[in-house]
Amino acid sequence: MSEKSATVFIGSKPTMSYVLAIITSFSSSNVGEIVLKARGRAITTAVDVAEIVRNRFLKDLKVNRIKIATEEMPAREGENRTRMVSTVEITLARE
Amino acid sequence: MSEKSATVFIGSKPTMSYVLAIITSFSSSNVGEIVLKARGRAITTAVDVAEIVRNRFLKDLKVNRIKIATEEMPAREGENRTRMVSTVEITLARE
Repeated sequence: MSEKSATVFIGSKPTMSYVLAIITSFSSSNVGEIVLKARGRAITTAVDVAEIVRNRFLKDLKVNRIKIATEEMPAREGENRTRMVSTVEITLARE
Repeated sequence: MSEKSATVFIGSKPTMSYVLAIITSFSSSNVGEIVLKARGRAITTAVDVAEIVRNRFLKDLKVNRIKIATEEMPAREGENRTRMVSTVEITLARE
């Protein structure tokens, strides 16, 4: 069976809950790589999650690819301009 | 003359002051690439800076390389354990 790619969206939950989600995903199925996606302030959390998973738990993982980009977000209520927000995608894969 | 590499440390100043420093550095000297280094919460700022420079000002730049890592920081006063902090290095270069 070929290996699948999974995506985990990093938001404002505690860092360790994403770490756990990734470990579970890698160990319970035929997932070969996981893409962590985050934007804005959650970018720091995404880097923390990737580093904790690799350094403390799954030492055979490597960072395959890191992409940064910009997304246009709809204006908040009361504002009339769209906002630009930075995004990051970190791909973790088995070596 | 060969092209040089410069390093910009991203901290807690306003995003646009780093953007300006990078534009100045690229346009006034023989700098061929700039490495943005940040840790902790400044990681988000570093991604913002890279995206703003590339999308709004110097459209011929590309992101050559992004590295993430973990650094051990000395304990804060009153704490007795070192802290681990995530770091990022984003290399911007002329195409």
